[in-house]
Order: sequence, then C-alpha cells, then structure tokens
Amino acid sequence: MFLCHGYASLSATAPLEPFRFDRRDLGPTDVRIAIDYCGVCHSDLHVARNDWQDTMYPFVPGHEIVGRVTEVGSGVSKFKVGDMAGVGTRVESCRTCNSCRRGLEQFCEVGAISTYNSFDKHTGAKTYGGYSEYIVVDEDFVLILPANLDPAAIAPLLCAGITTYSPLMHWKVGSGQKVGIVGLGGLGHMAVKFAHALGAHVALFTTSPSKREDAMRLGADEVIVSNNPSEFIAHRDSFDFILDTVAVDHDVNAYIELLKLDGTMTQIGAPKGPLAVDALKLMSRRRSFAGSQVGGIAETQEMLDFCGKHSIAADIEIIKIQEIEHAFSRMLKSDVKYRFVIDMASLKE
Amino acid sequence: MFLCHGYASLSATAPLEPFRFDRRDLGPTDVRIAIDYCGVCHSDLHVARNDWQDTMYPFVPGHEIVGRVTEVGSGVSKFKVGDMAGVGTRVESCRTCNSCRRGLEQFCEVGAISTYNSFDKHTGAKTYGGYSEYIVVDEDFVLILPANLDPAAIAPLLCAGITTYSPLMHWKVGSGQKVGIVGLGGLGHMAVKFAHALGAHVALFTTSPSKREDAMRLGADEVIVSNNPSEFIAHRDSFDFILDTVAVDHDVNAYIELLKLDGTMTQIGAPKGPLAVDALKLMSRRRSFAGSQVGGIAETQEMLDFCGKHSIAADIEIIKIQEIEHAFSRMLKSDVKYRFVIDMASLKE
Repeated sequence: MFLCHGYASLSATAPLEPFRFDRRDLGPTDVRIAIDYCGVCHSDLHVARNDWQDTMYPFVPGHEIVGRVTEVGSGVSKFKVGDMAGVGTRVESCRTCNSCRRGLEQFCEVGAISTYNSFDKHTGAKTYGGYSEYIVVDEDFVLILPANLDPAAIAPLLCAGITTYSPLMHWKVGSGQKVGIVGLGGLGHMAVKFAHALGAHVALFTTSPSKREDAMRLGADEVIVSNNPSEFIAHRDSFDFILDTVAVDHDVNAYIELLKLDGTMTQIGAPKGPLAVDALKLMSRRRSFAGSQVGGIAETQEMLDFCGKHSIAADIEIIKIQEIEHAFSRMLKSDVKYRFVIDMASLKE
Repeated sequence: MFLCHGYASLSATAPLEPFRFDRRDLGPTDVRIAIDYCGVCHSDLHVARNDWQDTMYPFVPGHEIVGRVTEVGSGVSKFKVGDMAGVGTRVESCRTCNSCRRGLEQFCEVGAISTYNSFDKHTGAKTYGGYSEYIVVDEDFVLILPANLDPAAIAPLLCAGITTYSPLMHWKVGSGQKVGIVGLGGLGHMAVKFAHALGAHVALFTTSPSKREDAMRLGADEVIVSNNPSEFIAHRDSFDFILDTVAVDHDVNAYIELLKLDGTMTQIGAPKGPLAVDALKLMSRRRSFAGSQVGGIAETQEMLDFCGKHSIAADIEIIKIQEIEHAFSRMLKSDVKYRFVIDMASLKE
C-alpha cells in the first residue's frame, strides 16, 4: 500500500476537502498512473451528494482520468514508464460473463467495478476516483491516448466521449443520415462532434437560442429551438436517430415523432423519475425508444483512436482542485463550455 | 355502383343495425368478394363508439374479411371467380412513397386507405368494412388464403395475425430465444402460436392464473402470473424479446427489466394515455421499447402461407351478425376465446 493525496467528500452535505488514503501496491498486471488531469462529470456531483442513495463516505470522485505511467507490474505489456494513459468509469469486471466476453464490460452481469464508490477486486477496499495524485489499475482497463491531442481535453473523452460515441456506433450513425442531438452540455457537445465526424447531417436541439452559434461551430448543420413547436412540425418523420442527453424530466414524445420509420431515440441522460412515452407514436412508425450507457474498454480505445485521427477532443475549462465546489455549482446552472477539467498539479498548492 | 347490405352504427351511442349502401363497380384491377366471414376486432368497437374521435357515421366495421371471388376486372391476374380471398386493414396506399415501395403500406407516408372509416381512392366515397355482403378491392390488396384451413378461423389472421407476426419477424424471433407475450386475448393467443411455431421458448404473461392450461395448449412453454412480483424476479435479464398486447395502462417497466442486454419490448396494444417508462432500466442493459402496427401486404401473404404450412389459425367463436352487440359487450370483459367471427350468411336471416 502507498499513501495518496486527493479530495473527498465526507458526507452528502460537506464540501470536498483534502483527503489522504491508501492505494494498493502494484500487482503483476497493474499500471500506476500519476494523474495530470481529471474531468468533472455530473455523476461525480451526484455521488458526492448521495443523490443515488448509495454513496460510501469518504468519497473521492473522478472517472475521466489522464496521466503518466510511473510504474508497471512485471507482466504489463501494453504500457511502459513515461507513457500517457487514461482511465474511465470502470477499473475491473468479472471478465467471464457473456457481456464481458463480448467486450461490453459496462454491462457485466456480475457488476463491473466502478472507478469510484465500488470495491477493489484485489483488496476488497473501496475504490477511489481520479481527484487524486495516483491511481493503480489493471492494464486491461487502462487506455492508450492519442499523442496529437491536448491531454487535458482528452480527459472528458473517458466518460462523456464514450457515452456519446457508443450509441452512435451501435445504431450505425453515418453519412446520409439525419441525426438529432438533444441538449448541448458535456455529453451533447461531444455527440455533435462525433455525429458530424461520422458524416451525418446533425441537428442540435436546445432550449437556448443563444447556443446556436456555438453548436454550428462544434459541427451542427442546424439548430432547432426545442420549445418552439412550429420548428418541430417541419421535422416530423425525418430523423434516423436522436440521442437525448437531457437528464431531467422532459417531453420525449415531441422528439419521438420526429423519427422516421424504424428510427430510434436513445436516452443517455438519466432523469430520476419515469418518462411519459406515447406508445401510439412508437407504433405509427415502428419507432424505438432505447437507452445506452458508456461503452466497453475495446470501444473506448476505438473512440480514442478515432479522436486522434479526426482531431476531436472536448471543449474544456481548466480549474484547480480548490475550485471544485464552485465548478459544481456552475455545472448545476449549465454554466460551463463544456466540461471542467481539474489540473491535478494544483493538489500540491 | 351496386347495392350492398351490411350492419352499421349510426352514432357513437347507437347499437349496430342493418344498413344499405353502395359499393363501386369493378375497375380493371378490382376483385369483388362475397364475404363469408368477418372477424370482430377491438378496433371495430373503438371506431363504432367514436373512441378515437374520428368516426364518420354511418360506419360499417370489419377488417378481417374472408370470402369468395364473384367477379374480377379485366386486368386481374391473381384471382379468378370462385377463389377464396381475404382482405385486411388496408385497401389502398399511395404506392410511391418509400414505405410503399418497401412493401410497408401500413406506414404509407401519404396515409394508406383503411378498409373502413377512410375515403375510397377511386370514388372519394367513404370506405365501408366487412360487416357486409360484398367488398370491392384492388387485387394488390387482396390476399390468397391457405386452402387447408377453416376459412372462418383464417379471418382473424388478417388483423390479429399479421399484427403479431410482423413484429416477431421484424425483431427476428426464432429458435434459441426466450420470448414473452403479454396478455392472452385475440392478439396474444396468435402471438403465442407464432412464437412457438418460430421455435422460440415462449412465456405467456397473464393476470389470470386460470389461463395457464389454455396458454400451454396454444404453445406456451411457461406461464408467468403478471401480478406476482416473485415470479418476475427469477426472469430478470433473460428475455430476448417481449411482445406486449395490452391496450390499457400498465407497468411496462416490470417487463422491460426482464429483457436481457439489447433486448426489445414491443407494444402492439395501444393504451390511450402515455406509459411511464424508466429510462434507467433501458440504459442499464441497452434495452429498447418499441411499437409496431399490423404489417404490409407482402408480409401478410407471407404470414398466411406460414399459417398454411404450420396449420395455424385463430381460436374462434362464430356468431351471427344479429349478436354483434352482445359480442362487443363480452369482448369488453375479455370473455372470448379468442376471437369472435361473424358468419355473414346470417345477414340474410
């Protein structure tokens, strides 16, 4: 075991504060990473505040982790000391169930080990996230990063990136298709970039007309103001696929009826309560309403390689760890373009 | 034009009564069918009572039509006088849109012409359904019937049959799969037969334990009592596909969480209001909640051929047209095994 500095929340109502904890020593297939940057995901805040009623305190958030390898186990073949490396939302899985064998560790039937608020497979101790100096992860769950991109802007790809890339690939979004992205936040801005790079005609739905220019810059071909019903009518029966990033209750039927025959709308934002779905609107065009969450390790690597090739990274605002509570409160007001990333060097200040 | 006898409702509150109306003379591609049997679909009752607020009175129901060809137009090649023939829920479509060109007339972008409560493409007059002596339909919308089955028991295949067959085919139900059918009525009993014939392991969900024996006889491998939560837990994450025939509000999430990774639940019963869908349950296993309605003409013919080959027809109870209101009231209480079919010879009584 070795001592590691980080930031943790000690209760649902306490602000994050400096925290010291132990990380496990390296096993033969482990990689130790000195964390340079960690993205700030909405889930970090949800778990810090016990919104999902399952937080184990003290809690160290962070699952969009980018850093440098400082040590490798004797059996590690994928990384050497000095390499850039990334860690996302999962650090282990059962490796034997149907989902794991298909490279879909996010759907591990036993339950994958999350980067935080889970239990370490080796030690049984709690897992702590990337708002910290170091992390130790089996190399099979460590990602190789594209060398041509700003490491800080890569960090959000490890969660926001793969969460949007995976459904676009699964539902085969590509050239000749009309694709809608609902919401322009951390997830939405990545979805616009990916759908554009995949060759689709991209429409961004937003309640804020002020986001029009930014959406076009990110790759949208058009912007539809989602509280303007007249703009909707013209788009009925026209979308091949819609990716909905909105995490609060909203009228999904207004979007569902924009889908063409056999079109799918996929939810990646997770509202707390159920959504009211009009079955007749599904039946009238054989439409589907689906859900997706992050992606497997192999697909995350594929996404990172795609990002390197297409020079895609997140639009970020760099903060110090000491500013995290302020960043959380701005995130709650959607006042971020489009992801906060913590410069972990600030831990030493 | 020629005179035709039938039964019609004259208002939302009036019982069906004898009614005389005109049918169009045969065009070159038309077939005139003397109707022997007509199935009684829930939609017949919905439209008769103006439940969907679009009924044009007088209204002649019936879109599960079986009879004999008595006359053919000069250009008709598919039928000759004396042939058995069937007509389902649609009698025309635009024939040029993307859906029609793909043989999916039920999704005609212009709007297919329904067998009743629609407007005739040739005359502009209202279309009247199969609770009548004759019907005149373009041969492209007339089905060839399997010769080895009871014609009366074929009638319900034209709506209940294709409505269940089409989604089972679209979502590729077959051998090695575990398939759930929710509800054992007109639709459900056909779905059980088809899913069984396609080689799937079939589980029937019902609120009535008394239907267990019947469901097994129809082809179910197991029966799950749907208001017994403990029976549900054992089936979590295990279904490839679930077909939901229930047309009233109910808890769809209880079924959605029985789907395995990438599983689909498809709604063919059409509740009036929206259904509460838990997006998290979709996201946690990349599940889909979809809708489907009837099927195209080519697929309806394929279904009838399949029925001939596998000796599949509906379980029916034959009534006289004079008993239709009593049948409607029994249907509302689900007191029918499993479809009423009108012997249209009774029209002459």
